[in-house]
Formats: sequence, structure tokens, C-alpha cells
Amino acid sequence: MPEVAFEVDVDAPPDDQPGANPFNRWHPDIPAVVEADPGDTMRLEALDWTGGQIRDNDDANEVRDVDLSQVHYLAGPVEVNGAEPGDLLKVEFLDMGPLNDRAEFGFTGTFSQQNGGGFLTDHFPNAAKSIWDLDGYTVSSRHVPDVRYEGKIHPGLAGCAPSQELLEEWNERERELMERHAEDPDSIQNHPTGEAEPPVANPPTTEGALMGEMDPDEAEEAAEEAARTVPPREHGGNHDIKDLSIGSTVYFPVYVDGAKFALGDFHASQGDGEITFCGAIEMAAYVDVKFDLVEDGMEKLGVDHPIFEPGHRGPTFEDYVTFCGYSVTEDGEQRYLDSHTAYRRASLQAIDYLKQFGYTGQQALHILGTVPVEGRQSGVVDVPNACSTLALPKGAFEFDVSPETLGSDKDRGDVVVTDDPLG
Amino acid sequence: MPEVAFEVDVDAPPDDQPGANPFNRWHPDIPAVVEADPGDTMRLEALDWTGGQIRDNDDANEVRDVDLSQVHYLAGPVEVNGAEPGDLLKVEFLDMGPLNDRAEFGFTGTFSQQNGGGFLTDHFPNAAKSIWDLDGYTVSSRHVPDVRYEGKIHPGLAGCAPSQELLEEWNERERELMERHAEDPDSIQNHPTGEAEPPVANPPTTEGALMGEMDPDEAEEAAEEAARTVPPREHGGNHDIKDLSIGSTVYFPVYVDGAKFALGDFHASQGDGEITFCGAIEMAAYVDVKFDLVEDGMEKLGVDHPIFEPGHRGPTFEDYVTFCGYSVTEDGEQRYLDSHTAYRRASLQAIDYLKQFGYTGQQALHILGTVPVEGRQSGVVDVPNACSTLALPKGAFEFDVSPETLGSDKDRGDVVVTDDPLG
Amino acid sequence: MPEVAFEVDVDAPPDDQPGANPFNRWHPDIPAVVEADPGDTMRLEALDWTGGQIRDNDDANEVRDVDLSQVHYLAGPVEVNGAEPGDLLKVEFLDMGPLNDRAEFGFTGTFSQQNGGGFLTDHFPNAAKSIWDLDGYTVSSRHVPDVRYEGKIHPGLAGCAPSQELLEEWNERERELMERHAEDPDSIQNHPTGEAEPPVANPPTTEGALMGEMDPDEAEEAAEEAARTVPPREHGGNHDIKDLSIGSTVYFPVYVDGAKFALGDFHASQGDGEITFCGAIEMAAYVDVKFDLVEDGMEKLGVDHPIFEPGHRGPTFEDYVTFCGYSVTEDGEQRYLDSHTAYRRASLQAIDYLKQFGYTGQQALHILGTVPVEGRQSGVVDVPNACSTLALPKGAFEFDVSPETLGSDKDRGDVVVTDDPLG
Amino acid sequence: MPEVAFEVDVDAPPDDQPGANPFNRWHPDIPAVVEADPGDTMRLEALDWTGGQIRDNDDANEVRDVDLSQVHYLAGPVEVNGAEPGDLLKVEFLDMGPLNDRAEFGFTGTFSQQNGGGFLTDHFPNAAKSIWDLDGYTVSSRHVPDVRYEGKIHPGLAGCAPSQELLEEWNERERELMERHAEDPDSIQNHPTGEAEPPVANPPTTEGALMGEMDPDEAEEAAEEAARTVPPREHGGNHDIKDLSIGSTVYFPVYVDGAKFALGDFHASQGDGEITFCGAIEMAAYVDVKFDLVEDGMEKLGVDHPIFEPGHRGPTFEDYVTFCGYSVTEDGEQRYLDSHTAYRRASLQAIDYLKQFGYTGQQALHILGTVPVEGRQSGVVDVPNACSTLALPKGAFEFDVSPETLGSDKDRGDVVVTDDPLG
Repeated sequence: MPEVAFEVDVDAPPDDQPGANPFNRWHPDIPAVVEADPGDTMRLEALDWTGGQIRDNDDANEVRDVDLSQVHYLAGPVEVNGAEPGDLLKVEFLDMGPLNDRAEFGFTGTFSQQNGGGFLTDHFPNAAKSIWDLDGYTVSSRHVPDVRYEGKIHPGLAGCAPSQELLEEWNERERELMERHAEDPDSIQNHPTGEAEPPVANPPTTEGALMGEMDPDEAEEAAEEAARTVPPREHGGNHDIKDLSIGSTVYFPVYVDGAKFALGDFHASQGDGEITFCGAIEMAAYVDVKFDLVEDGMEKLGVDHPIFEPGHRGPTFEDYVTFCGYSVTEDGEQRYLDSHTAYRRASLQAIDYLKQFGYTGQQALHILGTVPVEGRQSGVVDVPNACSTLALPKGAFEFDVSPETLGSDKDRGDVVVTDDPLG
Repeated sequence: MPEVAFEVDVDAPPDDQPGANPFNRWHPDIPAVVEADPGDTMRLEALDWTGGQIRDNDDANEVRDVDLSQVHYLAGPVEVNGAEPGDLLKVEFLDMGPLNDRAEFGFTGTFSQQNGGGFLTDHFPNAAKSIWDLDGYTVSSRHVPDVRYEGKIHPGLAGCAPSQELLEEWNERERELMERHAEDPDSIQNHPTGEAEPPVANPPTTEGALMGEMDPDEAEEAAEEAARTVPPREHGGNHDIKDLSIGSTVYFPVYVDGAKFALGDFHASQGDGEITFCGAIEMAAYVDVKFDLVEDGMEKLGVDHPIFEPGHRGPTFEDYVTFCGYSVTEDGEQRYLDSHTAYRRASLQAIDYLKQFGYTGQQALHILGTVPVEGRQSGVVDVPNACSTLALPKGAFEFDVSPETLGSDKDRGDVVVTDDPLG
Repeated sequence: MPEVAFEVDVDAPPDDQPGANPFNRWHPDIPAVVEADPGDTMRLEALDWTGGQIRDNDDANEVRDVDLSQVHYLAGPVEVNGAEPGDLLKVEFLDMGPLNDRAEFGFTGTFSQQNGGGFLTDHFPNAAKSIWDLDGYTVSSRHVPDVRYEGKIHPGLAGCAPSQELLEEWNERERELMERHAEDPDSIQNHPTGEAEPPVANPPTTEGALMGEMDPDEAEEAAEEAARTVPPREHGGNHDIKDLSIGSTVYFPVYVDGAKFALGDFHASQGDGEITFCGAIEMAAYVDVKFDLVEDGMEKLGVDHPIFEPGHRGPTFEDYVTFCGYSVTEDGEQRYLDSHTAYRRASLQAIDYLKQFGYTGQQALHILGTVPVEGRQSGVVDVPNACSTLALPKGAFEFDVSPETLGSDKDRGDVVVTDDPLG
Repeated sequence: MPEVAFEVDVDAPPDDQPGANPFNRWHPDIPAVVEADPGDTMRLEALDWTGGQIRDNDDANEVRDVDLSQVHYLAGPVEVNGAEPGDLLKVEFLDMGPLNDRAEFGFTGTFSQQNGGGFLTDHFPNAAKSIWDLDGYTVSSRHVPDVRYEGKIHPGLAGCAPSQELLEEWNERERELMERHAEDPDSIQNHPTGEAEPPVANPPTTEGALMGEMDPDEAEEAAEEAARTVPPREHGGNHDIKDLSIGSTVYFPVYVDGAKFALGDFHASQGDGEITFCGAIEMAAYVDVKFDLVEDGMEKLGVDHPIFEPGHRGPTFEDYVTFCGYSVTEDGEQRYLDSHTAYRRASLQAIDYLKQFGYTGQQALHILGTVPVEGRQSGVVDVPNACSTLALPKGAFEFDVSPETLGSDKDRGDVVVTDDPLG
């Protein structure tokens, strides 16, 4: 086992850890707390993305009331000696797994429309929760019976620190989006409307900011401009790519000397899109990483976003039921080549299908969020309809979920749903 | 070999075929020309989607000047005895292949921004063409050297006839989109702007309409309301799903008595999204289909779009280089959870990457349109950025396209590009 | 479609074909009837291995009485210009398929112990037959219900002509084996004993010899020493490798000027080992091949047997039930690291297992011979027991064949079995 | 993490562990040291199969001089409450991995012909050793450069205790084999000949016997008849099946009340056949197992050997170079349907091939023993030649090992080989 270079204690408060504390903002000046040479291998541990707010119980109010200002709790930054802007930082994910003897479960949540929302929040406005058992890599849930499969573990979030210039670019463009929305909500496609609607972006805030080992005076100032960790951006970040599992190699753009790499937000398994938002099987975990550098890699390879080579450790599935969606909203409004809407419709088709097999809609939503479904951009040019497909692996179910069976009327219980949506 | 129930002659004009003529509009009243019982297996042949307008030569003007009013040339309609609205028509694709002794090549085109446009038309405004050899299922192109792979053949277009009611719904919602665009072009996300911009939708037109065996008098009237075949819709249609290859089983919603199933627009291979628009390897082909019915299947399975179970005949790839994109436009504009833009950016990353290996941008575009790349809806909830990924299979190349190689300066020629964009 | 360079007529006698006749012996002097340059692509057609002796009916006596002196009916020889001894002939299998409009079925047979025998002939001494429908690549049989799968088509037999020297080496070593057996039957491991036992090898014979376009006078003399086509040898030959399907590339050693390549004995699908002997789904078929040469390839690559790179066209299976066998005979005799016996035992385990699902033993045998089971040399060093495994793909069955189901008592009929074993 | 029910200390002597000691014989009376109910999940740890005799250094004499009387060191027995003879014990392998912080390497050895021997001992009579680094599941070796891959971890050995009756059957048949060999060495096929030849079987011996928690007086007596753990037998045992990796479910026959299940001999990776004998990447490891029972499963499923369903966690490979072998010995002797010899020849072809890429023969041997090569029983009926194939995954190499490259003259060093074969 490689040396544990960043260690967490799931029983301690997330902001009062025995060693270096996790941090939760992107800023070039957050000091590195781990040092690595090219060629080094080390273990990094990370808390779950809520820092322990969701526990193994049957209380969905924990999801409804989750404090989203502090997320995520990242491991790092790691300074890689010799890394310079323009390089690519090569990161091999040699192994990952649960912090077994310290945190033995995962959770999936539907956020309340009043707090977080999500892809299908207008269909599922109330918070809900399911708890998942981790048997090695095999996952199952008392809240979603008859589903049991080998998960595809991965970090939802990983990337290098932005430069000051890049950070300002992020802030500027996201502020501009919020302004557009404030001026004319209808100008923002794909956003649910209504009083409790989730924000279109999360601007910098000092509230809940954890700036790592930064000097407290500087930290306050930096937090005022530091980027939130919710969205993925061109450095990677919270991209929630389910395929970054064991054996993958990622090349991350470097923007500051030493790269200042960090990661976190592990998922025992996730479907493409992470459509439940808090939607993968969220967990605390470790990862063994090996670092290397590609000097001037961004120019040499012509990229300014991460690229990666997926591993070969599966799980592999062969048999799928696949659903189609096009860019027409549920209300019948025709959108122009809108892949987001197309994937929504494919997801809703899959949910309605699963309801014919005895699941509730919320259960079906949690299935799509956790099972490694393949969400594909199948067609993007046939005006006006984009076509997205969602492929559901049959092997994740302990019964035959094929169309030939014409469904099943077995009662399969439910996830835990909040009855009082306002908390 | 099953009986050829719909035969084409690639050397005859597309609208003057020896047997029943192909048709190119969706309308409930177009008469069936083939009859099938549940359980029947038959062979259907189809012209390429342009009806032979693009030939095996080095002239890209054929693509620039293509007549888009007549596309596509569909085989059918097939009346399946006993099919009723609400049923699902089960269609097994037992085999497909080129009309070998009659049409032995495929083509890929970049449409002119003045005629068709496409996903990246503002980056590649000029028409271009590449010709592909079909060696069995193995494809290669003199215009894109050092790429050679086993393709994933499939019909780009398949579905049952709409009911009159569904047809009107289509027409209404697409007209509404065109009106919105006419009033305020900026309200339509993802649409390129400029004088020569492609239309946001294609309304019914009698021009170029082929109404099959319909009585000429009725045909003219029907054509005025018949839906164009360009977009996919909830019946399937032109969904361009690369995974519908040999061995797949599709369940199509039935809207009219007898189902009136049709298909066409075959591709020797395609990448997810078909980003070149005329973008797969377009070809004339045959398919052997087996029909069956699931009575009341739409209600029993809770679906009103096609669902399918993919086959197992590959080709399978294991090694990929994967590119990421987020919903920020190339100009730096922040979009809200816009998967279309995210996939554009991932595609552009891949194109820039391939340029480091000696390809031109147009060649790279044709590679992404034809190689079975996996385009994934990786993240759709992390506001404001959707994340899409594009996974390029290394096995499609005859050299090592891995990041480790740091590119190659080999000259790899070019596709044929129009020098005069206006024709 | 490439030019048909070797054509067959399944309705004509196998030795009186319209063009060049198939041949059935290996000899350096059989003249080439097709010529190819390196880089050429062509179509070759071949009769089924019995030349049409087994027909689509319910008469198993055709298998019992099959004339084995004439098999197999090979397409070729093909002279590849420039090929010299020591080269490797590179052959790409671009496409294959049934001669659809001329022969639309396949067959599987259990040979009689009196005529041919086979791997499990002491368990299944009577001849039996099953007829298989070919729906594209999907196969099924009225004699083996509830089994339906996409097959893995391949030529059972392919290779270049031996040199005179190699031919003599073959004859010498096989004669020596027969002599050993004649002197002391017990010295020959793995051979069934009894009066009707099949021969341990098939020596040259002029009976039934088809020497292609050889001068009749020379042919008679050559047939006296020409090698039979039953066994595979270091040139390839009848190696019955199920993985040589569409998209594969094989490098065959060249022993004579021009290589004189030939192939035949196509199978719509086969399990590893072809344990029924006449055991794959036997069929007439075509193959599109592309030839190339690797000069001095045998020395450069250090090989003197064929090597190959399998294609990627599947079918792929993910879910298996796997059976184990060790080198102890059914009678309890301990053998020393005997993989043949180990695979026998694994096969018998699988047969007994399938009998719990309603199949007869003969049906189970035909399933193992035709479904692409994986037969593995799992352990070969743990004295005294070799371990072989047989992995049965669940996806080949239309019901759940998992252990969890504990079998099924459904009556599934039977293959056609000869009642009078002597004919 | 499940409770550790059997714990080992790799720094303590293998027969003086802190808790229950490993055992190394099969006997029904060895007492269970772990108890489980059906449905229970637990972690079992095991020493490497030599109990620490081979260390991470460059001394191959450790392999030459290894004491084979004590192997293997098994974890267990586990008594599963309610298990009765005739049941099947269902064992799910939920997770496995190295004892990371306690043993961080693996080893591969070629046994000396004087001590252990092996599949190709007449070609490689001298002992040799390679040491492998375990980076998570990714393995590499300073002794075999340019090979690096994700391994397929598995226990080489697992099974339930035999009944007294079954034990006697084993002893009887293996004794009979030794007697046959003593009387007439030539009657034993596949055995190397010469003064230093390894034994054909290993009879019971009290020397080195570890009888677990058995009373010392009874243990001595039991050891005189207890079966050695070297060979696999119908209970499973040392079957060395590389496919029993994470996610697999095995059904083991039960012969005694409580089943008395045990396992050990973990491999970080192995090729089919484990042709180096000490040939996989040998390691100490843990496994998380879940137990369940199928009452009367042997009769219900018609099996009396283990059956299993492989997991889906890969690694998966798509591109192979495959080698063929037939049942003719290297000396040109024709064998009758001898799959062992066929696999030998395929292995030797692969070794000669790898030598063209700069490896020594011993390195090539270690590659075939450790990389998950697929060893197939391709043909077993075409008298007199069986055909076996060995498929080498290209993805295990850090360079292109395709035939197209025509080899490489790079110097790749060597494994450590003993210079004095006698010690």
C-alpha cells in the first residue's frame, strides 16, 4: 500500500481533521499540503461530499436540509514538483475503495426543489434518500430491493488549481449568466421555473468556505473570489464522469506552478448524468494515484481540457434495455437540438418503464442515478430534434427486466421520501 | 436468405424504381406496399439517403449542391397484420450489409453552411467529402489515411407511420419553433447565426415529396401536411442511433392500424451524434427483419418512444482516448446545463487533438462522424455546466493515437473540400 | 462485393461443379485454380464439409451413413504471386456469410461410434442430427428449442499447401501412431476401446480423393501420399478455431512457391473443441479474403504455425455458467496432466447440468458443440490433475439457465437420433 | 469492511501465526476454526502459497531450494451452519486485494527440474524468479520490463473438505498412477523423462503436514492419509482458474457436515494453465466472501464438481495475438488428441515469438504465466491432432506487440536465473 499522504477521519468534524483539513474552493493561492515528485505513488483519502451530513438511517430530512455551502471536501492540494503552466499532469488511478473499517455505506439523495433541486426536480420536488450497502464493489440497498450489481467506483471531482486569470474568467462568465437570468428568466433554457427554483449558478461566497492551510486573513479575501466546486470547468473539477474508475489515466491541464492537484466526491457507482444530483452512491473513499508530467502537453496534444484513457476493470455489461428521448419537452414544446431535454425525456421513459416492474418513481430515479447506465448523445444534427439514449444494464437487476416479461406487479417498497418538503 | 420484399436498383432514378418506389414523408395515409404477419422474416433494401446524388469521385461540389428536399428514400411501408394503435411493433434486425454487387462504397460529407449546415458549421462552413471503401464490414478511405476499422452498420432511420393526430402535433410544435425563431433568433439556443444559417426546422412542402403509392391527387394534398423525415420524433424516425446494429431488437410504438413500418438511411458506421450531419458512412444497404407484436405494449411497458435491446455483434473496442467538454461556448459564453454545447466542446477538443497527429480539421471531423465514438451525457446536474465526453476508440487507427506518443507530424493528406462555397 | 474467384453450386454434385472443382487432399502438386496478387481482395465460396450429404429433414441416418472418405470440399488452391517458402501469408477475413439464396440451413451431427465417433462417443454411440435455421447470423433449431443466439461464423479449415518434405513428415508420424496403436491399443491415451472404435488416424487413400485440376494420371499417384484433411497440422488445416470469425487476420506459414492457399468447412457457430465432431453448425458459405505477404515472416516472427489476431465483431457474451473437469476418467482412473480428459469431464458436467433444464443428453451435446462455449486450459501443472473449464454463455438461451433457478422440468423434445446404429 | 475471520501475519512464521494457523492438507477431521451462517459475509486472509519463502530480492536460489512439503497455507476451515453432504456451498467473492500494508509484492518462479519441475521444465530446467510490483491491481516487474497491466486477482485454491470416502478414492487412484509409472514410465503420457524428473503425484506424508487445530496425536495419524493440496480435484482445490476473480460466485460441492471450506494461494494475475507452475504472480491477500447454501444442490443441478458464474470486473482485453499448437511433440512424435501437448506447442510458439521482441525465453515464460492469456481447447476431435490456442492480450505490453511490427531488437534484460541448478 502506498503511503497515505492525505488522511481523513470520518468520525471527526470535516473541518477539524487530525491532519490537513479538506478544502472546498478553487483558488490559486490555497497552499499545497502534499508534495510529490513525478513518478510518485501515494494514497489520498477523502470524506464524502457532504462531510458526513447524510447518515445510515431512514431519515430523508437529512437530504432535505443538507448544508450545500460547505461542499465538497477535497483532498489536497498536491504540489507536483516541476509542474508548470501548459504542462499536462498525468494521474493514474491505480486503486480505489471504501474506507472500509471507517465508513461502510453509501447514500443517494433526491434534493428538494427548495434546496439544490436537480435534473427532474419538477417531477420529484420532495427530498428522498436511499442507503446502499457496500460489499466490496458490490452494492445493494434496502430501499431499492432486487437491484444488486458491481459498481464502477470513481472520484466525481478532480483537477488542478486555476490560475488567477482563469479564475477571473470563470467568475465573469458565471456572473454574466446570473445577470441574464435575473433580467430575463426565460432566456435561460432548461431551467425549471417557480418561486423555489434552484439558482442557475453559485457565485463565490465566504460562507462555509474552507480555504485549507491558507492564512486566515488572506483566506477571507481569497474566498470572496474563489470558485465554488459545484460545476465542472475546463480544469476538470466536478465533472462526475463515471468512467474514471480503477485503471484510468487522466491528463489534467496545469495552470499554476506545482499544479496543486486535488480530488474528492467519490461514488461507489453512478449512471451517466448523475441525474439525481446527489445521485451517485456517495461515499468516503481512498484512491492510489501515480503522478507524472507531460511538459508542454497542452500545446503538444492540442487540448485545454482534461483527456483520459479509461481503465479495463469494468464492470462490463452486455445486455441493455435502451430508451430514447428527443428535444421536445414533457409539455410538448419543441426545442432546437437540445440534448439536455432529449436526455430528460429518455430518463423519464426509463422511469415510467421501471414503474411497470413494481418500483416507485423515486426508486426508479435512484436506480438511474446509481446503476452505470450509458447516456449517449446519439444524434445532434437532425433539426430540430436531438436524440439522446439511456441504456439500462439488465445485469444490475436480480430479476429479468427485459421487455419480453411485460413488467411485474411485485411490490418493491420505496426509498425514504420527505413528507414535509419545507423542513 | 429471406424473400426480398422491397427491392431497389441503385442504377435507376430513385423515384423510378422497378418495383414500389421509396417514399420520403411521414403520413398515415401513404399506402403499405409490403404485407407481413407477426413472425415473418423478410429482406428490405434501401437506397442511400440522397438517392445516389453523391458518387465515388473527388468532387465535393456534389455535397455542396445536394438537393435536400427529396431525402430520405425509405423502404416500405410494411403493413403488419393485426397491429393496432397502442401496440409495440417488435423488429429484430437479423442481418444487414451493403448491396454489394450493386453499390460498393460509402460517403461522408460536411454540408455547406449555405445548404444544410451542421453541428460545427461555423467552424467548417465549406462543403467537403470523403469516400469510403467497404471491405465487408471493414471500412477505410483514401481521403482519411491510416484509419481502418470494422464498422457498426445500422439504419439511421426507422419507425411506424404517425396517426393524423400525432402528425398534427408534430407540425404544430415545429411551426411554433420556427415562429419563435422568426420573431427572435436569439431565443433559439444552439443555433448558428448569420445570413446563410440553416433553418431551425423543415416544414411540410410538396416540393420533392415522394408519397409512395398514394393516388396522385391525394398525394399532393397529403404532402402539404406530411412530416419531413429529417428529425427523429417519438415514433423513432431519423434517430441515427449507431447502436441499432445487427442483432438488435427494437420495439416501436404503433399509431395506425397495420403499423406501416419503414426504414432507410443506412450507415456503414457512425459516431455518436453523427456530428458531420451527412456524417456517418452513408450507403445503400439491405436489412433482414423479423416482425412481431406486443399487444398494448405501450401501456404495459409504460413507454411512448421506441425502446431497444442492442445486439452483441460489435465491433467492440476496449481502448479509448476520451475528451471532455462543458457548457461554455467557444466564445466563452456560459450556458446553463447545455449538453449540446458541452458535446460541441468535447468534439472540438478531439478535433484539435487529431490535428496533432497530421490530420486536417475536416479529416478529423469526418473521423468523429464515422468512427463509432461514444458520446456520453456524463454530467447534467452540476450547475451551470453540463459535462459531455467523447471517447475515441484507438483501435480504429492503424497507428498509435495515444497521448503518450505526443502526436505525429506525418502528412496525411485531406478530404476533398469545396473551394467555392456558393456553387 | 469482391469478385467471386471460386464459386460453388450447392445443387450440383460436389465433384461436378460448374467451375473448378473443390479438392480434398493436401499435396504440393495440386494446381492452383485462382491467382492473387498481394493486396488483392476476393470472394471464395465453399460447400459444406460433407458436400451436401446432410439435408434439411428429420432423418438422422444421413449422419450415421455419411461417407467420410470424400470430406472436406475445399475452395482453392489460390496462388499468391511472390509467395515463397518461409514467408507468412497474411489473410484478412473481411466478411463471411451463408450462401443465402442457395443454402439456408445448417446441421449438427453426432457421429455413430461405427462411423467417425467423437469426443464422447462412448456416451453417445448412436448417430443423431439437428437442423439449424440461419436468420442472418442468428441461429435456432427446431430440434433444440429455447436456444437462439447470434453465432460466430468461421471457416473450420484453412491453410497453405505443404511442401513435399513436410507432407512426408506428416505421413511418417501418423503412420507411426497407427503402428503403435496396432501393436498395443493401450499405449494410445484417450482412445475409446471396443470393436467399432474409430481409427486413430486416417492414412492417405486414393478412395474418394479429389485432386482438383491435377492431371488424372498424376492425381492417382499423388493421392497415394496426399494428406487427408481431417486433422489440423502446423500449416493450420482443419483446426476448427471458433475465434477465426469476421474481422480476423491470420498469418499462415508458406511452404511452396505461391503458397497455394485453400479453405472450407464453414461453421455458423461452434463451441470450443467442436465436441460433437460434426459438431459445429455446418454450412456452405462465402468468405471475402484479402491477401498480403510478410517476407521471411516465419523467421522474423519466430513462428512455424499460424498466428492470428481475432476480429471485434463478436458476438460478445458477459454472463456464463462455467463447469470444471480434472484429468480423472469417468471410471475413476487417474491420468497424468491429461487436459483432454479434463475437458471431457467438464463437458459431461455441463451435459448433466443441461439435463436438469429439460434437455436430453444428445440435445445438450449439440448445444455444447454449437454455442460458442469457451473451453479453457485453466490449469496444466498441478500434478497429477489438469483442470479444464467450459464456460456456457447464458445469453444463448431464451430462458434463465442460471444455477439460481435450480433447473426446469419443461419438456424440450429431442434431436433426431438413429434407432438402428448399424444402418 | 467485513469482520476479519481469519487473519495472518506475514512477518510471523507461517506455522506460528497469532491466531489460528493455516493448514495444508485435505482431511475431513481437521477442525473448523471459523463459523458462518448462510448469508454471512466475512474477510479471510491468506499467506502466499510458500508461506514467505520467496522474498523481494534478486536471488533465484530461493525458488530452486523452495520446500514444497509444506505448501499451501490455507485459510479456514470455515464451518457453514446447516451445510450437509449433497448441498452446494455458494460462495461470492465480493472483493480481494493485497495485504497492502503488510506485503506489497508478488513473485513468479520457474521451478528447477530437480525440485518441482513444470509444464516446460525440459526447456527451462533451471530455477528462475521475477519480482512483481503491485500498484493497486496494476502489476509490473523490474525483471520483465515494458510489461504492465491490470491483473485478474483470484485465489488459486478453494474448496470444501472431502469426506473420508472421497479422500480414500483420491488416495487410491493417485497411488495407482504412481504404481503404473514405477512399473512402466512410458505408460504415463506427458511426463518428462530423465533422472531428475518430478514425481507424477504427491502421496500423503507427515513431513511438513500442518493439520490446523487438530489434536497432535490424531493429527499425525490423519496426516498419513490426508491429501496433499497440489492437485485440483472434484471438490475444487488447487484448480488455478484465473477467471475466479472479484465478483465471481462459485458453487462448491459439500461432502461433510458444515462444509469446512478453505482457500488460499492467491494470484495477482495468471495466464490460463499457470504454465510456469509457480507461475502466477504469487501473493498474500485477503478476500471478502459471502456464504450461502443450495440444499441438495448437487442432485438438483446435476453436478459433482464446482460450477461458477464469473464476475464482471475484468480486466477486459480486446486485442490479441493468438498462437496455435497441435498434438505433435517438439520431437515430432504424433500424439493422439493430446490437448496437453497441443497447449505446450502453442506456448512454445508464443515464447519464440516474444523472443523476437527482445525478451529471453525465461522472461517470455514468466509473461505467459502471469498475463491473463486465454488458453483454449479449440479442437478436440480431429484425429489425431487436438488443437489448442493461446491468446496473448496486446494491452499487457507498453509497446506494440503486433505481428505487423516484425519484432524489436530492444534489449529487455532478463529474469533472475539460477546458475547452479543443484543448490
